[in-house]
Amino acid sequence: MPSAAGRGQGQDRRSENEDSSAADDYAKERYGVSSMIQSQEKPDRVLVRIKDLTVEKADEEVWVRGRIHTSRAKGKQCFLVLRQQQFNIQALVAVGQHASKQMVKFAANITKESIVDIEGVVRKAHQKIGGCTQQDVELHVQRIYVISSAEPRLPLQLDDAVRPEVEGEEDGRATVNQDTRLDNRIIDLRTSTSQAIFCLQSGICQLFRETLIRKGFVEIQTPKIISAASEGGANVFTVSYFKTSAYLAQSPQLYKQMCICADFEKVFCVGPVFRAEDSNTHRHLTEFVGLDIEMAFNYHYHEVVDEIADTLVQIFKGLQERFQTEIQTVSKQFPCEPFKFLEPTLRLEYREGVAMLREAGVEMGDEEDLSTPNEKLLGRLVKEKYDTDFYILDKYPLAVRPFYTMPDPANPKTSNSYDMFMRGEEILSGAQRIHDPQLLTERAKHHGIDLEKIKAYIDSFRFGAPPHAGGGIGLERVTMLYLGLHNVRQTSMFPRDPKRLTP
Amino acid sequence: MPSAAGRGQGQDRRSENEDSSAADDYAKERYGVSSMIQSQEKPDRVLVRIKDLTVEKADEEVWVRGRIHTSRAKGKQCFLVLRQQQFNIQALVAVGQHASKQMVKFAANITKESIVDIEGVVRKAHQKIGGCTQQDVELHVQRIYVISSAEPRLPLQLDDAVRPEVEGEEDGRATVNQDTRLDNRIIDLRTSTSQAIFCLQSGICQLFRETLIRKGFVEIQTPKIISAASEGGANVFTVSYFKTSAYLAQSPQLYKQMCICADFEKVFCVGPVFRAEDSNTHRHLTEFVGLDIEMAFNYHYHEVVDEIADTLVQIFKGLQERFQTEIQTVSKQFPCEPFKFLEPTLRLEYREGVAMLREAGVEMGDEEDLSTPNEKLLGRLVKEKYDTDFYILDKYPLAVRPFYTMPDPANPKTSNSYDMFMRGEEILSGAQRIHDPQLLTERAKHHGIDLEKIKAYIDSFRFGAPPHAGGGIGLERVTMLYLGLHNVRQTSMFPRDPKRLTP
Repeated sequence: MPSAAGRGQGQDRRSENEDSSAADDYAKERYGVSSMIQSQEKPDRVLVRIKDLTVEKADEEVWVRGRIHTSRAKGKQCFLVLRQQQFNIQALVAVGQHASKQMVKFAANITKESIVDIEGVVRKAHQKIGGCTQQDVELHVQRIYVISSAEPRLPLQLDDAVRPEVEGEEDGRATVNQDTRLDNRIIDLRTSTSQAIFCLQSGICQLFRETLIRKGFVEIQTPKIISAASEGGANVFTVSYFKTSAYLAQSPQLYKQMCICADFEKVFCVGPVFRAEDSNTHRHLTEFVGLDIEMAFNYHYHEVVDEIADTLVQIFKGLQERFQTEIQTVSKQFPCEPFKFLEPTLRLEYREGVAMLREAGVEMGDEEDLSTPNEKLLGRLVKEKYDTDFYILDKYPLAVRPFYTMPDPANPKTSNSYDMFMRGEEILSGAQRIHDPQLLTERAKHHGIDLEKIKAYIDSFRFGAPPHAGGGIGLERVTMLYLGLHNVRQTSMFPRDPKRLTP
Repeated sequence: MPSAAGRGQGQDRRSENEDSSAADDYAKERYGVSSMIQSQEKPDRVLVRIKDLTVEKADEEVWVRGRIHTSRAKGKQCFLVLRQQQFNIQALVAVGQHASKQMVKFAANITKESIVDIEGVVRKAHQKIGGCTQQDVELHVQRIYVISSAEPRLPLQLDDAVRPEVEGEEDGRATVNQDTRLDNRIIDLRTSTSQAIFCLQSGICQLFRETLIRKGFVEIQTPKIISAASEGGANVFTVSYFKTSAYLAQSPQLYKQMCICADFEKVFCVGPVFRAEDSNTHRHLTEFVGLDIEMAFNYHYHEVVDEIADTLVQIFKGLQERFQTEIQTVSKQFPCEPFKFLEPTLRLEYREGVAMLREAGVEMGDEEDLSTPNEKLLGRLVKEKYDTDFYILDKYPLAVRPFYTMPDPANPKTSNSYDMFMRGEEILSGAQRIHDPQLLTERAKHHGIDLEKIKAYIDSFRFGAPPHAGGGIGLERVTMLYLGLHNVRQTSMFPRDPKRLTP
């Protein structure tokens, strides 16, 4: 019963309206600041979603809750843009039967970003309303109540925050720099671009798990507080743990492999990984989300490579199918070419990549790792030659990979390891792991690793271990590169780097 | 081409067999220790799953990979039980056309838990084979190769590890204590009980997310390294963070709420939460997996309570439908009543719960929190009266809840908060949160909290915040209580408590 609820709320508001409105205000019950919603009542009122306000609803009376995106008073009228996530609609408060001039003034004074409940009639617009997602209708306001007020001074303007950089430069209009965005993340996350980025990121996680569960994988949960640094001692955060100290896991590597030794056969996990690296680049975070896979195979690690590559392909396809709106929204602010990939995924050997780079004038050794610029250059060369933004580089030099990487039986200088790339940047690193405790011990010694520290790890392979391989994907990187963005802080809700620990 | 691959592998093995077998062994190509699988080749061989070995496959020749679960030599025969996850089959190596006496001896000497490849013919069993999941068939072995050897001394026996405690006590047979299990977790996780527990746990996560995504929720990723303790200062782990120090998040509380303030409306996250509590009980861990929900509502927090309760009901139903095998497997070792629940979920007010306890003779004050024994007693009383293992207790005393809990507008001593219980133990705690910065400041002061430390939190509500509520669920507790287990360490793969940090 909207009217009953309206009355109930009206009583709460009356005293507040007495301050600002004349006693002869015929609309005084129709607007005001609601008392704080404390679950006083359960009104039987349906709130309609802004995205559902279309011409089909013309002339219907509806209740809507939204934020005041902009507001512009003009004589006896006030034009509001009411926003809800990625959607918005124009609302008109005009002096007349339902609204007094006090009510129009009240509406015009509501601060931007405040949340309001509006009762209004949906009217077909005379002409397309530019700047709104609902271009064919507007809302004629009959009641307006403030549910939650925003302070008048916003730390950043949403319109500035979605302006393409180029446009801002050309017109001398404001854009918002990254630190201001991140310092005021709750406002920055309200922009259509941010809403789209993180809905799509949620979709990546969903597609990753959907695909793997369909392939028979089991989700595991691995501990983040660990007693020994998982990948050697460097770049690890220390935690005080009661009377002793511990570390934050740099990857779920050891635990994924233990699950394979414990017969789970195909496992994945999604969770935070921690790197105490003092790297201040566009693609490094000290805490990021790892999408990790580990899988026992029968005879050849390419069985695993194929599964991982197909999982990524299923993600790319699913995003195309289900998140087209979000992709378009982001591209308005950050234009980029649609993401291209092949089926099956292109797989090159490391030596082929090196050959392509040399042909392009790069000088590098056979056993040298790819520098970031060379990675990017190779990405461009591969794109030119094969027309794909996604490919696998297989058989890395043994020397540049972790000690637990399985050597290539056919060539002592290479290994059964691989990276995967999106738009020329690494998003996954993986390998066949050594499942034999003796060889693992030899390789650890060769790398100068203290055997005592990795004893539990090596012991995991002493009671029968199947051959296995896997890899870890950086979620923020996949989101960034799929959308053609340029900084991983855009795709982490609350990024952590050596200089940022808040909000 | 199995034969070609067999030859290839045979060559690798020949030298090893020369030590142990006579030169006149007519079967010498048919068994041995395989060289380490290093992805040397991609044989075109199909490995059949043990669970698919049924009478329909009788007289077919198949390749199978599995672990030696048990082995028993008897004259010219050796009976093996071959295991693959929760399934196993009897395999027979008998002197004859395919196997020499050296081969039978070789098979009999393979250590338990070693992984082997077997080529054999599926034969209908003359009588049901007790102790195997595949009771109607056995495998007549023609070739057997060891893929990965287990050391002869196992730290625990799988058969002991799945024995019900009662049976062990009655018959004087061994069971395995918890520390031995956890110290040797990769072996303990191979038991049918552990396999079932963690497959079901993976299912809980899947059902939780499936349900929420269907309800329009977005998955978020929240940081675990934070600059200020999220729930006041107590029980928090400290991390050294470059030149400063930081904390491990005790919950995603602040970040979930920031996402609500940032217009995501309905969010969930699955991730580790950390509690530096020195509690050594059956249900406390220092690191556990939180299934967290936060949701903006229109007028009443029961809109959220209903969504959360329905999500749990969907999980319970999904487990019943999809994980019946796992439930049965666990109940063989840990018998318990099937989990009961009502639709819609029973919701009692706290004062009703207190009244039931008082009627049962418990003395307690109106504003006193429930002790663990009283929680359990109330669970039994509710079960007797309403026949449900799952219920909600609503409207907790304000005094026993965190400062950000919304007070009940109708009663200054109670609050808009709730816990949910499974089999008499709390699995979720939640509330309507205060979304008004002024009231939040008052309540924080009342609790004696340093306002400076929670400034960023309070500031999040200054730019328009919708009313919202939520809750956090402990994954390990849900798994434990659904299955009627008695220790949360059984449902955490690698549990962390004040005394355990490994493996």
